[in-house]
Amino acid sequence: GPGPTACLSVGSASAFSRTAPPYQLLHSAPRPGRFRFGYARSSAVGPGCAVLDQAFARYWRLLRYAGPRAPGEGPEAAGAPWIYLTVCLLPAGLETFSQLIWRDEDGTFYLNKTDIVDFPRFAHRGLLLDTSRHYLPLRAILETLDVMAYNKFNVFHWHIVDDPSFPYESAAFPELSRKGAYNPATHVYTLNDVKLVIEYARLRGIRVISEFDTPGHTLSWGPGAPGLLTPCYAGSIPSGAYGPVNPILNTTYQFMTELFREVSTVFPDFYLHLGGDEVDFTCWRSNPKIQAFMQWMGFGQDYAKLESFYIQRLLNIVSSYGKGYVVWQEVFDNGVKVKPDTIIHVWRENAGPYQQEVARVTKAGYRALLSAPWYLNRISYGQDWQAAYQVEPLEFEGSPEQKALVIGGEACMWGEFVDVTNLTPRLWPRAGAIAERLWSNKTVRDLQDAYIRLADFRCTLLRRGIPAQPLFTGYCDAEYSGF
Amino acid sequence: GPGPTACLSVGSASAFSRTAPPYQLLHSAPRPGRFRFGYARSSAVGPGCAVLDQAFARYWRLLRYAGPRAPGEGPEAAGAPWIYLTVCLLPAGLETFSQLIWRDEDGTFYLNKTDIVDFPRFAHRGLLLDTSRHYLPLRAILETLDVMAYNKFNVFHWHIVDDPSFPYESAAFPELSRKGAYNPATHVYTLNDVKLVIEYARLRGIRVISEFDTPGHTLSWGPGAPGLLTPCYAGSIPSGAYGPVNPILNTTYQFMTELFREVSTVFPDFYLHLGGDEVDFTCWRSNPKIQAFMQWMGFGQDYAKLESFYIQRLLNIVSSYGKGYVVWQEVFDNGVKVKPDTIIHVWRENAGPYQQEVARVTKAGYRALLSAPWYLNRISYGQDWQAAYQVEPLEFEGSPEQKALVIGGEACMWGEFVDVTNLTPRLWPRAGAIAERLWSNKTVRDLQDAYIRLADFRCTLLRRGIPAQPLFTGYCDAEYSGF
Repeated sequence: GPGPTACLSVGSASAFSRTAPPYQLLHSAPRPGRFRFGYARSSAVGPGCAVLDQAFARYWRLLRYAGPRAPGEGPEAAGAPWIYLTVCLLPAGLETFSQLIWRDEDGTFYLNKTDIVDFPRFAHRGLLLDTSRHYLPLRAILETLDVMAYNKFNVFHWHIVDDPSFPYESAAFPELSRKGAYNPATHVYTLNDVKLVIEYARLRGIRVISEFDTPGHTLSWGPGAPGLLTPCYAGSIPSGAYGPVNPILNTTYQFMTELFREVSTVFPDFYLHLGGDEVDFTCWRSNPKIQAFMQWMGFGQDYAKLESFYIQRLLNIVSSYGKGYVVWQEVFDNGVKVKPDTIIHVWRENAGPYQQEVARVTKAGYRALLSAPWYLNRISYGQDWQAAYQVEPLEFEGSPEQKALVIGGEACMWGEFVDVTNLTPRLWPRAGAIAERLWSNKTVRDLQDAYIRLADFRCTLLRRGIPAQPLFTGYCDAEYSGF
Repeated sequence: GPGPTACLSVGSASAFSRTAPPYQLLHSAPRPGRFRFGYARSSAVGPGCAVLDQAFARYWRLLRYAGPRAPGEGPEAAGAPWIYLTVCLLPAGLETFSQLIWRDEDGTFYLNKTDIVDFPRFAHRGLLLDTSRHYLPLRAILETLDVMAYNKFNVFHWHIVDDPSFPYESAAFPELSRKGAYNPATHVYTLNDVKLVIEYARLRGIRVISEFDTPGHTLSWGPGAPGLLTPCYAGSIPSGAYGPVNPILNTTYQFMTELFREVSTVFPDFYLHLGGDEVDFTCWRSNPKIQAFMQWMGFGQDYAKLESFYIQRLLNIVSSYGKGYVVWQEVFDNGVKVKPDTIIHVWRENAGPYQQEVARVTKAGYRALLSAPWYLNRISYGQDWQAAYQVEPLEFEGSPEQKALVIGGEACMWGEFVDVTNLTPRLWPRAGAIAERLWSNKTVRDLQDAYIRLADFRCTLLRRGIPAQPLFTGYCDAEYSGF
């Protein structure tokens, strides 16, 4: 199959006691009655690899929440009371392992003899959080990263700023959050906060892709960046309102050069998400200077050309910092010239079937990232995880080469109606359905099976202290107790 | 207007310090700089009235969460630093008072000179919780009662058992929960639990109406009550499945006599909710003994007559305990003979406009309770509180006498998709829109005004530690911190 090959093999059917915290790495031979995570001889890394060391420690703690044996889970395991655990892909491998463990009432852990060859179908398995429409406290983001790892998501798409607020504390432009955050003292992410999120994610095998969406969705930037936004006109007079970023001023590009220099450094991932969606041309159209610029450039009345003009200059800036970029589909739709390795993020539901857009994007040779059917903020009554689960990302008319250009997808939780009070139950386990679609084989799609797995996994989340909401009527042996 | 007249008058514009915990009642003259709740001379009750004493104590504590002054809330209050607070309707009056208070940064509380004459439009302002589809831990119920009081709801409709589980621990029939609860050790309400809920509610001005729904919705009763449910047949052989309560056996009525004797004692409210909704006739039809009974009774093929036969006997049993009853609308629709003071609970959305049902019920002289437009479990994307708010309960064709028979309504939170993980944010502030509709004048219905009030009140709930979800994009000065 596609994607990186990974393996997790458990050497011996085993019963073992988790008797000896604090956790130690296995450097010597395993002792009877004890369990240790250890580096396999074939492992490419060894002790000192922070991601692995800390994942061992984390999953050592999580073992305490192993569930009871499920009915029909076979006879109790016999054999040597120790195991070899060889993990090549991390920390998803440890998560797989932790989900196979169960324990009896006296606290002994059991694991059936197991060989696992498990690898993701898609390389990009993302989740978008929106911290502009509502501020999410750091703890909520960190908890989400925990649960993302449990679900084997590996990209946190941080839609950090937007029209309503600008919570990112910029070193280069501190006025942006000082005047654009809901509250510059309490509703901001400091540089330390951002670094903490990135490191916390890294240790869980999660990349952080930031999105500073322009030229639309920037109203909150205005107060802290005078001259950046387009003044809208009512007839021949400025109306006092502002529109998208003003694309005709050199100062705009000087500003973007500085801002994205900082963003490129603060967020180490190769990719930046540059937005580019939903640019409303009304304000641009109203502004006489922009009208004059359009004429001078020969754009006629085609404001998509002006948008392209802006985006191309922005892409050049970001490219100069050695970064790749993800953009929302409008950038492609409007014919902006982008680099061949650009990722086009397909999100629109109302512009015809999204499958056709994926076909167009990949036919043009670009990589596609799918979110259109996975807007988790759009809630409806009943088991709406099923529709998300039944999506088949490669179900579009296209060549094998085109299919190979679909790098994965992202679940999106836009923030209009979501903040720390309801984020977690609204995300989980619904996002888990998308995670499985992006991880598992195409053939794994039976709804009844998935229900059983997801309901069981939801009980695991409750045991781990995560208030994941119920899929349907029923109960867990251990209900949510963090209340 | 209709409803009990109530008053809350604040004697003097005032600034006062909340300097002297522990709270004391005002029995002597108020001292400068201090604030005390006290009994007014005109009060019908005095110290020793537990509801009032404890409400004073509770709101004394809640004052610490008073919000900052809203913009444009007038000049700072001048005048004597003490107030007279005369409260005739409780504890809703104290809630009104607490919402008028704000404080400045040094902790001084302010209150503008205020005369309040506030009373509810409808006497019955209920909220239904369903503890059968998912078990709700006691703490979740108690928290809900707190927030109900903040919203001036005054009836907790406890839909305590149903098909999926029977969490009520009956003294007369302990096998019901032993065999019908999800887990008889952890997922049950003991007699003490129930008493605690009732007393906690009483102190907050809330009645508790229990619902033991029969003859349908009783699958979980079966294992603990052999012979109670109807055996379904496949052809001439019992299929092994069970249907509604078996209405043709004397033992059924003996059982109900015992069970409702207990329920009538445990739940002191005058009213019991007896259910009676959604009786599926398929199983009754399949059973040859029931067929024979139908023939013998001359019911033909009209199984609604059999349902009526059962319900009438049940109503007689409950009446014999001196109780009144509430029933779902089907009991009325099926022509069951009920007592004149029966309350008919209108819930069906798909059986024509609910307004016509309210008209029919009241035309027949029965009192009506409205829930059809207020199923809060039915979520949808966006600000669905607005539809709930815009309902006008008396907007149906009928005489003034008919209108007077609408005693109020209930917000319903059925439990298919709700448990302790998502109950609170899903309830609040959405249920608050219904609470206002049931409390305030008919003329109070401007959506924009309501949004401002409800968004502000939601911030109050956050300060009080309740994770009420956001209505829309924005923020509160003090976000939810219980996370």
